[in-house]
Amino acid sequence: MAEATTVRRSRITPEREAELYAAVLGLLREVGYDALTMDAVASRTRSSKATLYRQWGSKAELVVKALRHQKPVNIGEIDTGTLRGDLHELVTREDDCRMEQDTSLMRGLAMAVHENADLLRALRELLFEPEMTGLERMLRRAVERGEIRADNPALEYVPHMLIGALVVRGLVDNQPPTQAFLTSYIDAVVLPALGA
Amino acid sequence: MAEATTVRRSRITPEREAELYAAVLGLLREVGYDALTMDAVASRTRSSKATLYRQWGSKAELVVKALRHQKPVNIGEIDTGTLRGDLHELVTREDDCRMEQDTSLMRGLAMAVHENADLLRALRELLFEPEMTGLERMLRRAVERGEIRADNPALEYVPHMLIGALVVRGLVDNQPPTQAFLTSYIDAVVLPALGA
Repeated sequence: MAEATTVRRSRITPEREAELYAAVLGLLREVGYDALTMDAVASRTRSSKATLYRQWGSKAELVVKALRHQKPVNIGEIDTGTLRGDLHELVTREDDCRMEQDTSLMRGLAMAVHENADLLRALRELLFEPEMTGLERMLRRAVERGEIRADNPALEYVPHMLIGALVVRGLVDNQPPTQAFLTSYIDAVVLPALGA
Repeated sequence: MAEATTVRRSRITPEREAELYAAVLGLLREVGYDALTMDAVASRTRSSKATLYRQWGSKAELVVKALRHQKPVNIGEIDTGTLRGDLHELVTREDDCRMEQDTSLMRGLAMAVHENADLLRALRELLFEPEMTGLERMLRRAVERGEIRADNPALEYVPHMLIGALVVRGLVDNQPPTQAFLTSYIDAVVLPALGA
């Protein structure tokens, strides 16, 4: 507990936080969620477990915040002036190599959530719901600009269209999702379904 | 080997085959793919391992053929005369309870394929590719009837749209896919994207 008190006095710098998140994601890629321990994170980052728990509360929260930290752009920050521009920006903000790494990480976590209710809750609250809110705002702007009719029934299915294509690309075509695939899918499926 | 020879003389009856597949799926639900052993299947069905290997070759093949056997309808058999009718038939051939069970089984297998290349191959060859061929035929008929333009770019993404929605329903909405959801998604997304 002495250690925790010491840390409570000194704030973690953004550089140190970034270093820590990178170590967490590295471990996650190496051993997966279930085998990842707070001990291993503490040891690799030369911090104490008390520090980790004080700062993040739980392994689930630490992992999800590390994922959130590495995201290059939040949907909420995208606003190109057209729906097509916004959606293309959404899928081209990560290069293909990063997208493949992320898809593989998320696939691992998608398995782990079935055994870890706290991971599912953290993923929903910290990662998924903010993105959904950002996507809703993006679509609302398109409705206000007159690009989509407000009563178009496809509006509520945009998350299913986008996340679905990303997730099943490997299964259907035996290759990872790429910017080119997602951009073409947006033009061929998402925008026509929205009547945009 | 004496046992295998005996069995080679007597053919397995369709009733016995159905009973065996039901036992395999039961075990799969209980313990998952990795923990399922040919020993357990042999013991539960009062057959010999030699019989199982002679008839099915491998655990992967046995499991995938059991999955294929329980499918109520093959896509290839659906032909209602309209694309909308065909797609609705496709998603209403299973009741919601069965669909939930199947989704949970397939989720388990989707995890297992990353560790078991022979399972992935068997799933592709015995289950997935025949379904894709049936779907392609369904879409070709719609093109021939003039319901879809042959050059519509959404044609190649129909599997992504359909399987994607099924797979991510739980993640996006925190509830299992149902007939009502899939039927509404087909009307709101798939048919409009195809211009049908």
